Amino acid sequence: MRFIHTADWHLGRVFGGQSLIQDQEFVLREFVELVRESKPDAVLISGDIYDRAVPPAAAVELYDQVLSQLIDLRVPVVAIAGNHDGPQRLAFGRQLMSQADYHIAGLPQEEISVVTLHDQHGPVHFHALPYAEPVVVRSLFKQPSISTHQEAMSACLASSVKRMATGGRHVLLAHAFVQGGSETPDSERPLSVGGADRVNASLFENFAYVALGHLHQPHAAGRPQIRYSGSLLKYSFAEEHHVKGVELIELTATGAVQREQIALHPRRDVRSIRVSLEELETQPYSLANREDYLQVILTDSANLMAPINRVREFFPNTLELVIEERLPNSPSNLSAPSFAEKSDIPQPIQMIEAFFEQRFGNSLTQPQYQKIQQILNDLRLQEQEIML
Amino acid sequence: MRFIHTADWHLGRVFGGQSLIQDQEFVLREFVELVRESKPDAVLISGDIYDRAVPPAAAVELYDQVLSQLIDLRVPVVAIAGNHDGPQRLAFGRQLMSQADYHIAGLPQEEISVVTLHDQHGPVHFHALPYAEPVVVRSLFKQPSISTHQEAMSACLASSVKRMATGGRHVLLAHAFVQGGSETPDSERPLSVGGADRVNASLFENFAYVALGHLHQPHAAGRPQIRYSGSLLKYSFAEEHHVKGVELIELTATGAVQREQIALHPRRDVRSIRVSLEELETQPYSLANREDYLQVILTDSANLMAPINRVREFFPNTLELVIEERLPNSPSNLSAPSFAEKSDIPQPIQMIEAFFEQRFGNSLTQPQYQKIQQILNDLRLQEQEIML
Repeated sequence: MRFIHTADWHLGRVFGGQSLIQDQEFVLREFVELVRESKPDAVLISGDIYDRAVPPAAAVELYDQVLSQLIDLRVPVVAIAGNHDGPQRLAFGRQLMSQADYHIAGLPQEEISVVTLHDQHGPVHFHALPYAEPVVVRSLFKQPSISTHQEAMSACLASSVKRMATGGRHVLLAHAFVQGGSETPDSERPLSVGGADRVNASLFENFAYVALGHLHQPHAAGRPQIRYSGSLLKYSFAEEHHVKGVELIELTATGAVQREQIALHPRRDVRSIRVSLEELETQPYSLANREDYLQVILTDSANLMAPINRVREFFPNTLELVIEERLPNSPSNLSAPSFAEKSDIPQPIQMIEAFFEQRFGNSLTQPQYQKIQQILNDLRLQEQEIML
Repeated sequence: MRFIHTADWHLGRVFGGQSLIQDQEFVLREFVELVRESKPDAVLISGDIYDRAVPPAAAVELYDQVLSQLIDLRVPVVAIAGNHDGPQRLAFGRQLMSQADYHIAGLPQEEISVVTLHDQHGPVHFHALPYAEPVVVRSLFKQPSISTHQEAMSACLASSVKRMATGGRHVLLAHAFVQGGSETPDSERPLSVGGADRVNASLFENFAYVALGHLHQPHAAGRPQIRYSGSLLKYSFAEEHHVKGVELIELTATGAVQREQIALHPRRDVRSIRVSLEELETQPYSLANREDYLQVILTDSANLMAPINRVREFFPNTLELVIEERLPNSPSNLSAPSFAEKSDIPQPIQMIEAFFEQRFGNSLTQPQYQKIQQILNDLRLQEQEIML
C-alpha cells in the first residue's frame, strides 16, 4: 500500500497583505501531477485545508478543482479538519462525497470514522480523527474532566484502540501538537498555553503510521512513523529554511513503513535578506528571483523616508521591512526564532492576567482565571462556528 | 416520471431579527417524509437554497442533512443556484456529489448541464440553468450586447434549444422573474429596474415543464406548465395569504403534465393582526397560535411607551409593530401590497438619480448613468463572490 501524506494547505491564506491563492494553485498543479505519476493508493490530507472557517470563494473553488482531479485519477482521498477549518462547512456533502471516495471528517465523533482500503496483503484501515478541541470532546463524551488536548485525544482514540486489538494495519490522520515535535512556527496559532496543547506520542502506539498536521516543518515526532508532512508552502519567514513537500509512504505486508519526502516547488520562494538601501542602489546586487516574497532587513539608518517603496523598486514582493537598528536584538535571531523565544509572545490569557494585576494590584483568583479561560474558549469556538 | 418541484428555501434566513433555522428544520422534516412516502423519481430545487452567499454554518449543516436523507432514499436531486446563493460555494464538490446523484449547477456555463433519468417510456432530460446574471452571461459568451435578463436567458438556452430539436421530453430548472408572474414579494430583491429583469415565457416553448424559482407565491407564468413552486415558508408579511408547499408533477409518456400542490405545515405561521393594546389587555382576545410570527398593527394612540414589550407579553414572537395612526395610508394596504405599490420603493439607481438631481440641478447623463449602473452591478457580484 502506497499513499501520499500532506497537510496544512491553508488555502486562502493572506501573507503580509498578499493573497497566496495563485501560489497555491501553482504548487497544487505540481501536486496533482505528482499524484498522476506516482499513482498512490490514497492521498491523506491532515487538516488546515483552508486558512479560516469561512475561506474566500476562490479557495473553495481551488480545493474543489484539486479534489475533482484527484478523484478523476481514481485516487481515494481521506481528509480531516484542522484547527483553522470550519468543521461543519468543510464537511458539507460528507456522506454524498464518500460515494466518490472523498472521505472528510469535520467534527470529532464518538467513534472515529475509518476508511478501509485493500492491497494484495489485505486491508489497511485509515482512522480519520479531525482536530479535537478539548471543549468539543468534553461535550461529545459528556466527561467534564477532559480539559487538556492529551485527555481529549485519548478519549477520541478509545474506539480505535479497541478496533486495533483485533490486529491488522492501521493508519491515523490527526491534527495536533505532538510532543517531540521540534517547533512552533510563527504562522501557527498555539492551541492553548502552558503545554496543555501537547499530546504525547505514546498515545499512537499501535498505528503503523500517523499522518500528522498542524506544525509546518516536516519532521518525525516521537518515532519515525509518527510524522508531520509539513505545510504546502512556506507560510511565514520563520519557515524560510524548511524544505516543503509531501511524504510518499509505503506500507509493507507487515505494516513496516518506508518513506520518502518529495519536494514541491513554489512559484515564489519566501526568504529573508539583510542589505542596505545604499548597497541596493549603488552596487550590483543580485536580483535573481526578485519576485520572491521577502523580508528585508535594512542596515541603513532608521531615518529614511518611505523605505519600503524604494526597496520594492528592486524587490516588488517585499512583504516585511525591518529597520535593523530599531531592533532590540541582533538580526540573526529574526528569521529562525527558537521555541523559547516564541513562547515569550504573550497569549491572550497572559495579557489579561498582566492587565488585571497592573490595574487591581492582585492576581486573578482561580475562579476568575477559569471564567476568562472559558470565555476565550467560547470565542475560539465561535470563530470556528462550532455549536456545542 | 414523477418528480417534486420546490424552490426558495432561503436556509439561514433571518426575519425581523429572528433566525428561522428551527422553522426550516421543522418543515424540511415534513418535506423529507413526503419524499419518503411519495417516492418521486427526482427532486428539483430551483434556487435560493440559502438566503445569502455565505450562509451560517447551521444552514450548511441543515442542507447537508436533508440532502443526505434524500440520497439515502435513493431519490436523485437536481438543484440550481439562485440570485441569493454564492454559486461557487454552493457548487463545491459538484463533480464528486454527482456520483451520488446530487446534481448542482452553480454558475451558468456555455452549455446547460443536463441530467437524464429514465422511466418506462424512455428518457427525461432535466436542464439545470442556474440564475443567469446578465453581466456574468455577457462575459461567458463574450457578447457585449447582452444586457437584459431576457437576452442573458436566451443566450444560455441556446444549447438546450438545439438539443430539444431532436425530440424527447425536456424539463427546465431556472431562477428568474418570468413575465406573467403575478407578484414581486416584499422579501425578494428586484434583480434589476425598469423591467430589464423580466424574462418572457415564450423562451421556454419546447419544455414539457419549467420548474421556476425566485418568486415566492406558487403560480403559473405564461402557461400552466411554466410554474413557480413558491418558497418553503412565508418569508415576509406580504406572503401572509400564500399557501406554501411543493409541486408534485407527473410527466406522461407524451410529455403532458399533471400536477398537484402538496401543502407544507410550518412550525409557526406568519400573519398580521390589527388590534389595540386596550383590547389585548381588557378583552378576552384570541391567543390561539400565540407563538406565530406576527406583524401587529396597533390601533391605539402613538404615544404609548415601549408598546412592543407589552404586545410581546401576549404574542412573544411579534416581529413587527406598526402604529396605525402614523401610517400615511389605510392599514389594509399593509399586508398585501400590489405590484404597483411595490415598484414605488426606489431602487438604488433611482435614489442616486434623485440625489444627483437635487444636488446638482440636472439629471445624470447617459454615460454617468451607465457608469453607476455598472458599479451597482459590480457590487452585486461582489456580494455573491462572483469573479468574472
